[in-house]
Amino acid sequence: METYDLIVVGSGPGGYVAAERAGALGKKVLLIEKGFLGGVCTNLGCIPTKSLLHGAKQYKHALEGEKIGLETKEVTYNLEKAMAWKQDTVETLRGGIGFLMKSNKVETVFGEAEFVDAHTVQVGETTYKGDYLIVATGSSPFVPPIPGSNLPHVLTSDAILAVEKIPETLTVIGGGVIGVEFASYFSMIGTKVTVIEMMEEILPMMDGDFAKMMRREMKGVDFRLGCKVEEVTSEGVAYTDAKGKKQTLASELVLMSVGRKPNVAGLENLKLDIARGGVLVNDRLQTNVANVYAIGDVNGKSLLAHSASRMAEVAIANIFGTTKQRMRYNAIPWAVYSSPEAAGCGLTETEAANQGISIKSETVQMRSNGRFLAEHGKRAGGLVKVIASTETNVILGVHLLGPYSSEMIWGAAAIIEAELRIQDVKEIVFPHPSVSELIKDACFALDHTL
Amino acid sequence: METYDLIVVGSGPGGYVAAERAGALGKKVLLIEKGFLGGVCTNLGCIPTKSLLHGAKQYKHALEGEKIGLETKEVTYNLEKAMAWKQDTVETLRGGIGFLMKSNKVETVFGEAEFVDAHTVQVGETTYKGDYLIVATGSSPFVPPIPGSNLPHVLTSDAILAVEKIPETLTVIGGGVIGVEFASYFSMIGTKVTVIEMMEEILPMMDGDFAKMMRREMKGVDFRLGCKVEEVTSEGVAYTDAKGKKQTLASELVLMSVGRKPNVAGLENLKLDIARGGVLVNDRLQTNVANVYAIGDVNGKSLLAHSASRMAEVAIANIFGTTKQRMRYNAIPWAVYSSPEAAGCGLTETEAANQGISIKSETVQMRSNGRFLAEHGKRAGGLVKVIASTETNVILGVHLLGPYSSEMIWGAAAIIEAELRIQDVKEIVFPHPSVSELIKDACFALDHTL
Repeated sequence: METYDLIVVGSGPGGYVAAERAGALGKKVLLIEKGFLGGVCTNLGCIPTKSLLHGAKQYKHALEGEKIGLETKEVTYNLEKAMAWKQDTVETLRGGIGFLMKSNKVETVFGEAEFVDAHTVQVGETTYKGDYLIVATGSSPFVPPIPGSNLPHVLTSDAILAVEKIPETLTVIGGGVIGVEFASYFSMIGTKVTVIEMMEEILPMMDGDFAKMMRREMKGVDFRLGCKVEEVTSEGVAYTDAKGKKQTLASELVLMSVGRKPNVAGLENLKLDIARGGVLVNDRLQTNVANVYAIGDVNGKSLLAHSASRMAEVAIANIFGTTKQRMRYNAIPWAVYSSPEAAGCGLTETEAANQGISIKSETVQMRSNGRFLAEHGKRAGGLVKVIASTETNVILGVHLLGPYSSEMIWGAAAIIEAELRIQDVKEIVFPHPSVSELIKDACFALDHTL
Repeated sequence: METYDLIVVGSGPGGYVAAERAGALGKKVLLIEKGFLGGVCTNLGCIPTKSLLHGAKQYKHALEGEKIGLETKEVTYNLEKAMAWKQDTVETLRGGIGFLMKSNKVETVFGEAEFVDAHTVQVGETTYKGDYLIVATGSSPFVPPIPGSNLPHVLTSDAILAVEKIPETLTVIGGGVIGVEFASYFSMIGTKVTVIEMMEEILPMMDGDFAKMMRREMKGVDFRLGCKVEEVTSEGVAYTDAKGKKQTLASELVLMSVGRKPNVAGLENLKLDIARGGVLVNDRLQTNVANVYAIGDVNGKSLLAHSASRMAEVAIANIFGTTKQRMRYNAIPWAVYSSPEAAGCGLTETEAANQGISIKSETVQMRSNGRFLAEHGKRAGGLVKVIASTETNVILGVHLLGPYSSEMIWGAAAIIEAELRIQDVKEIVFPHPSVSELIKDACFALDHTL
């Protein structure tokens, strides 16, 4: 029987990074994957959606480019080609992960892992032993028990990535990140999209002013807030609106995107402490069983690909490394790749209020910015908000809504991690012209002195 | 006669920021401008070029979008509309600066400033007195004494922004930032562009590997390196190539972009120390005359709009502020808004070698990145390089070539300013999928441990 320093189950952005880092340290590592390398992120999540969204954004630019000098006739969106491009991207990245595993001498086994005990995993007829075990089994779309949710035109995010024709109408149930990204995508390629959200606002990780502007800027999408879906039928979606009135919405396709649930089925023999949100872990990602770690969506702490990767690094550092790292959740950025984009890092005003943290906050309009104006004009909307501690002036949150948000936000993670103060950011030189300058502008709005 | 706490001459990104910051501190400020508010940057530089480049990039995407699902017929670039959009952007921003001056109670006078002495400036018949004087007169395109450089089809960057038709052919003399941006622009909109550069490589602020890839990725542009222009005639450009052979290049338009020279004419009465590169200043931007400061291009220290703005802040902090700031040049980012984009901050390998600084450096290919692949495919090129001190592991330079470079680079300025080490950046969580993740990847390449 083969024995390993580490067995990792699940090859998403948690699992494969854990395997890679441990392999790079010279450890003997086994990585088990029941589907494709890369997990949901590479195959059914982050990557395919970004591939499709990029094409749809270019399509939209081509349709709307006349004012900036771009004239086109007969602009069409070819779904088949977009899907082929997406598939090529996915397969290239999958291949890249395979290469990474090989170059770090990680052994990879494809098949469903059966957990025998905290040191033993079986795949088919073969048994593997490991000193340490990392559970990185991810999450799955949660389908609520709504009548009709098993009808064939009701899809989860997995299935909607394989549509073969552009639907005329789409109802998105749930206005979180996944719902909003798909709403944006289908809206851009010509589908009439309605989003039904049970809460009073979409995108709960944003402050209300941002979510409101996001809805306003996603002009083609009809948002219905405070609405409870009662039933899905072959004709459409029946819901109770915010005023308690019954409504029906005809819809060719329905996307069920109300959330995701951790994949904890099958972990029973490990005797892990599991709560409703997932496997319980400490800040080293260790479970109640000392040699078993749980990283990524399965522990329910932060359902983001890059959180999973960071958890992988922290877990490996604690298992095999020389630095005793702890997982910190205060500077994890998020991004929504819709049109417009949004991204944030750190505290929102709402979170600060809920946690009783005394903060000051300033928001600047993107249309005061040279590059934004040069590219989008004075009628487009966008926001930048910076939040700082009243007491220490340390930056606690940065929130962006508008172009380049997803690529600017890493700097916010850096300044929050480094605990820079307002004054420190004011002394950073931002390139001109760039949308990023608005972060400095917001800091000057917080403190006009030099 | 009116007296002021501060007189600022020149309303570019140095001058108007100085006036704004001093006004915000409650000082009585006069701003003198001979042309339009915003100076070269707003009217003839950063802003109009970015406006045009954005439209040209969208045009290129529309032409090349088929593989990602975007099908178009009869795509044309309408120069007149692009120029109108550019003009609207410029005028909006100019208006914005005017508003900023008003809201900070800065008095603005239009006209040519005559410097009478270190406290006195005259505009037409009116004399103004100031306790402090900030010279922010900027720079102008340098036209070398090449025979024929005064011919009507030989343009500087100022004039080429007003072309009324797309030229068939364009020869760009000088492969610096301005030359490369215009080469990229005209190449994208259909002009056959040749760049003639006297040095052995373009873009001297980049390491050679980056400049080489930039040339490779600017597929439509013909770069001729190590070539010395001898004469411009009405038919074309005569030059001696790298092998000493005489060559002639037919060209409808010629762009002269070999550099810029500080506007020091007229400063004589101030009795400032002036060298070839501009007005001499200390690290507080003070000249040899104690109440006179010189900021922006006119001091020749760093000919970038954002450097000028930062100098404005440092000067005002020293004149009126409570913090005794010093100008630092080690973390000033630069960006080239060509297609592809490039940006950098801090030391290059070449600079480190020249300065005898012991560094380590790692470069990663953008095509290993999920978002880059999803948007540009596996055949596109892009690079990320991170440079750190061998001794301390502190990050000293970050260099980017590829999409989003100009909007990602501010984070590099932040980490260099904060003196983060490799390990610190490895612990920052970067959003996935984003091109910015490559910065972390390069840090892991520098140090595989956790």
